[in-house]
Amino acid sequence: MAKYQQLVDQLRAQIEARIWPPGEKLPSLRQQAEQSGLSLMTVMHAYEVLESQGWIVSKPQSGYYIAPRAAESRPRLPTQAIARTEQADTNSFVFDVLQATRDPAIIPFGSAFPDPELFPQRQLMRSLVKVSHNLKPSDALNNLPPGNEALRKILAQRYAQQGITLSPDDIVITNGAMEALNLSLQAVTEPGDWVVIENPSFYGALQVIERLKLNAIAIASDVEQGIDLDELEQALQRWPVKACWLMTNRQNPLGFTLSVERKQQLVALLARHKVAMIEDDVYSDLYNGHDKPLPAKAFDREGNVLHCGSFSKNLVAGFRVGWVAAGRHAQRVQRIQLMSTLSTSAPMQLALADFLSTRSYDTHLKKLRQTLAKRKQQAQQALRRVLPIEAHISDTPGGYFLWISLPEQINTTQLYHLALKEGISIAPGQLFSGSEGFSHCFRFNTAWPWDARAETAVETLGKLIAELRSDSSTES
Amino acid sequence: MAKYQQLVDQLRAQIEARIWPPGEKLPSLRQQAEQSGLSLMTVMHAYEVLESQGWIVSKPQSGYYIAPRAAESRPRLPTQAIARTEQADTNSFVFDVLQATRDPAIIPFGSAFPDPELFPQRQLMRSLVKVSHNLKPSDALNNLPPGNEALRKILAQRYAQQGITLSPDDIVITNGAMEALNLSLQAVTEPGDWVVIENPSFYGALQVIERLKLNAIAIASDVEQGIDLDELEQALQRWPVKACWLMTNRQNPLGFTLSVERKQQLVALLARHKVAMIEDDVYSDLYNGHDKPLPAKAFDREGNVLHCGSFSKNLVAGFRVGWVAAGRHAQRVQRIQLMSTLSTSAPMQLALADFLSTRSYDTHLKKLRQTLAKRKQQAQQALRRVLPIEAHISDTPGGYFLWISLPEQINTTQLYHLALKEGISIAPGQLFSGSEGFSHCFRFNTAWPWDARAETAVETLGKLIAELRSDSSTES
Repeated sequence: MAKYQQLVDQLRAQIEARIWPPGEKLPSLRQQAEQSGLSLMTVMHAYEVLESQGWIVSKPQSGYYIAPRAAESRPRLPTQAIARTEQADTNSFVFDVLQATRDPAIIPFGSAFPDPELFPQRQLMRSLVKVSHNLKPSDALNNLPPGNEALRKILAQRYAQQGITLSPDDIVITNGAMEALNLSLQAVTEPGDWVVIENPSFYGALQVIERLKLNAIAIASDVEQGIDLDELEQALQRWPVKACWLMTNRQNPLGFTLSVERKQQLVALLARHKVAMIEDDVYSDLYNGHDKPLPAKAFDREGNVLHCGSFSKNLVAGFRVGWVAAGRHAQRVQRIQLMSTLSTSAPMQLALADFLSTRSYDTHLKKLRQTLAKRKQQAQQALRRVLPIEAHISDTPGGYFLWISLPEQINTTQLYHLALKEGISIAPGQLFSGSEGFSHCFRFNTAWPWDARAETAVETLGKLIAELRSDSSTES
Repeated sequence: MAKYQQLVDQLRAQIEARIWPPGEKLPSLRQQAEQSGLSLMTVMHAYEVLESQGWIVSKPQSGYYIAPRAAESRPRLPTQAIARTEQADTNSFVFDVLQATRDPAIIPFGSAFPDPELFPQRQLMRSLVKVSHNLKPSDALNNLPPGNEALRKILAQRYAQQGITLSPDDIVITNGAMEALNLSLQAVTEPGDWVVIENPSFYGALQVIERLKLNAIAIASDVEQGIDLDELEQALQRWPVKACWLMTNRQNPLGFTLSVERKQQLVALLARHKVAMIEDDVYSDLYNGHDKPLPAKAFDREGNVLHCGSFSKNLVAGFRVGWVAAGRHAQRVQRIQLMSTLSTSAPMQLALADFLSTRSYDTHLKKLRQTLAKRKQQAQQALRRVLPIEAHISDTPGGYFLWISLPEQINTTQLYHLALKEGISIAPGQLFSGSEGFSHCFRFNTAWPWDARAETAVETLGKLIAELRSDSSTES
C-alpha cells in the first residue's frame, strides 16, 4: 500500500473513532511529516485525499480541521479509490500470466487473443504482397499521423453504416488499440488526476493508470447490467474525475454489453460532469445476432468520447494497427503520437486499407462469429460438466470470454499456479481488480479449437478446483 | 514560465538583493501560498528547487531558512533549468515546422529525414514480399517484446563487429527510435524528476520531457567538442538528476561527434553519479572516413547506458522499427512497451531481419554515405556563396545537417516564416532550445537532391537573410 494511503487510512480510522473529533485542528503538514517520518509530499497527498473525500477541510491562514460531519456514519460505497502502488504486485503478476500464454506448450485458456488460425491469412498475405510491390519512397511521409487517408475513410464509412457520422479527420491510426487507449488517456489527463474504471476491468487499464501516475476509482460492474450508473454519478460528485475508461460491448472480463439506454445515460452523465470518456471497443465486431451493437460514441454530441478500436482481436494480431475516433481531442492525440512513436508503420496501414476495400472483411467476420459461438458453447458445456454446482458461468452472448465465479473459498490465483504446472493457463480474477472481490473468479478464453486436448485440460481444471475446495473445507 | 519557477526566480532575486539575508526564516509553506495566491504544491516545488540549489535550507521542527552563504556571488552557469511550461509555445511551433516539411511543394531544408529516394527500395520490397508469402498465424506471438529473435541477433552481431559484447536479450525492438527513447526515459524516471539534455538538443527530447512532466537541465554543447563535461559534473552535483539524454555521434542539430576520450569520461561520470544515460544514436551509420564511431555504450560496464538506434534515417522511414540496447533496464523497458503499444509490427520486424541477413545493408550504407557527403559539400558551397561573410557554417564530417550561425541580429524564426512563404522550410534555432541563445541559428538538411530548384531556393534564402539584416541595421 502506498505510504500516503496508509496515512489516509490511519487518520480516517482515528476520525471515525473520534480520536480527532469534528472541528479539531489536525497537526500541520510539517508537524505531521516530522511525527510520522513521512515526506512532506506524502503528508500533503494524504491530506488532499482526505479533503477530497470530505473528512477534513482546510481553512485559509490557519490549517486543516476535521470536517463537521466527518464522523457521522457514511454509506460505505463499494467504490474504491485505488492507491497506485497497491498495483505494483498485480502488475508484475500480469506480466507473468501474459508470459505463460505465449508458451505454445501451455493451453491458452488465460489468453486475451483468439486463435490466430481463425484469421484470413491468405487474403491478408495477398494484400501485403500487393502493397509491398507498390511501395513508394514517399509512403512514409504520406502515412504520418493522423494516418493513411484511405484507411481513415474506410473506418469512417464503417461508422456511417451504423448511423454514426464522423469525419475521417477525427480518426487517428495507432499502433494497435493499446496505443490508442494510451494516447487517449494522456490527451485528457495529467499525472495525479483521477480516472474512473470498472471493477473488474481490463488489466491493461489498471497498468496504464499506474504507469501514468493516475489515481483510479473502480466502480462496481455487474456481469449482466454493466457499470452501476448511480455509483458512477456519486463518484463524479465526490472526486475531481478527469476521464472514464470503459468497455461498452463484450466487456473484458465480464462479457456484458451495455444496453442502448445505459449507453445514452452514460454519455450524458459524463458530458454533464465534463468528464472525457475513453471507450475501449475492441470486441464489438464479435457480436451475436444480426446487428453490430452501437458504441456509446454514437450518442456523443460534443466530441467528448474517444472511441478506440482495433483489428487485433478479429482480423490479424501482429500488424499492430488500431485507431481512435478522438472527437475534439483528435489533434492532441496526434501530437502525443508524434512524440511517442511518431506514427504507425506505413506498409501495415496500406495493407489493411487494401484488405478492407474488398468484401473479404465482412465475409470473414461473419464466419468468425459463427465459429466463436460454436466454440464458446462447447467450452460452456465442458465446463458445466466439471465445475461445482455452485459455480456461476456468465452467459452473455458474443465474444469469446467466459467469466466464471467459483465458490468463494476457492482462490483462483492458487488455481492459476496449480493449473500452470499442468500446462494450462487461466486468467485469475486478481488480474482485473485492485480489490480482493474477485479472487474466486477467473476468465476463460473459448476461442481456441475444442479438441481432445482441450477437453482433457478442462477435466484437469475441474479436478484442481475440487481439490482446492476440499482443502479449504478441511481447513475450516 | 511555470508558476513555481516564477517564485524561484523572485525569491532568488530577493535573496541576492539581501531582502532575505542569510539565516533569516522564510515564510512557511502555507503562509507563502496564501500571500502569493499559489497552491501549496507550487510553493513546495519552488522551495525544493531553492533548497536543491543551495539557496535555502530546511531545519527540522522549524521551517525554511536562507542558507548562510546564499548571497555570496556564485558563478552564473550558462546551464539552465528549464521550466516545463516555457516549452508549451515551442512545442506547438515544432508541430507547425514538422507539418511544413510534409508538404511536397515545400523544399525540405528544415526536414529531419533524408531523401527517401536514397533508400534501397527494390531490395526492401523483395524482403517484404518474401516475408508476406511466408507469414504464419503464430508470428504475432513470436514477435512480442523483446521482439524478433533473428533481428535481435543480427543487431547483437553488428554491435560485436564494433567490439561491443551484448546479449540479444538486452535488446528490445521498438516502434522506431522515438519509442525506444520514450520507453528508456520512462524506465528510469518518474514525473517531477530531473533530466540533463544538451543545449541545443533534438527538439523531440524537449517535447518528451515536457510530456512526461520531467524537469530539464540543458548543458551547453559546443559545435565541435560537444557537451561541456565540467558543467555537466557541476549540474550532477547540484541537481538530483536521474537521467541524461544525449547524442554522441552526429549530434542533432550541431553535427559534432564526441571523441572516444570524452565518451569514456561521460560514461564514467554518469556511472559515478548513478545517473542513467539515454544515448540517442540514430545517425551513427552516416559517418565519414573508414570506421563507424563507437557509441558511449561501448564503455558501459554496468548496464547503465540505454543505447537507442533506428533504421529510419539510413534504410527505410516508414517501417517504424528501432531498438534499444537497454542494459540492466531491458526488462523494465519491455514491460512499459507491453503497456504502451504491446509490440512492434511482426511483418516489419521479419522483413528487416530478412533484409539485414543479406549483404545489401552494408553495400547500401557505403553508397548512401558517399551520396550524402557529396550533397553536403554542394550545399555548403552554395550556402557559402549567399550567406553574409560573418555567418558560420558548421564543418563537422558525416551526417546531413549543417548548423548555421548568422549574425546575432538576425532572427531565424522570422526567417523561417518568410522562407515558408517562398516555399522553403528551414529548422530555426528556437526549435532546439528552451533559451534564446540560438535565435540567430538554423539547421539545414543537405540530404536532398542538389538541383536547380535547390540552388534557386538557397539564393532566395540568401536574399531573405540580407533583407532581414538590413532591416535590423536600419532599426538600430
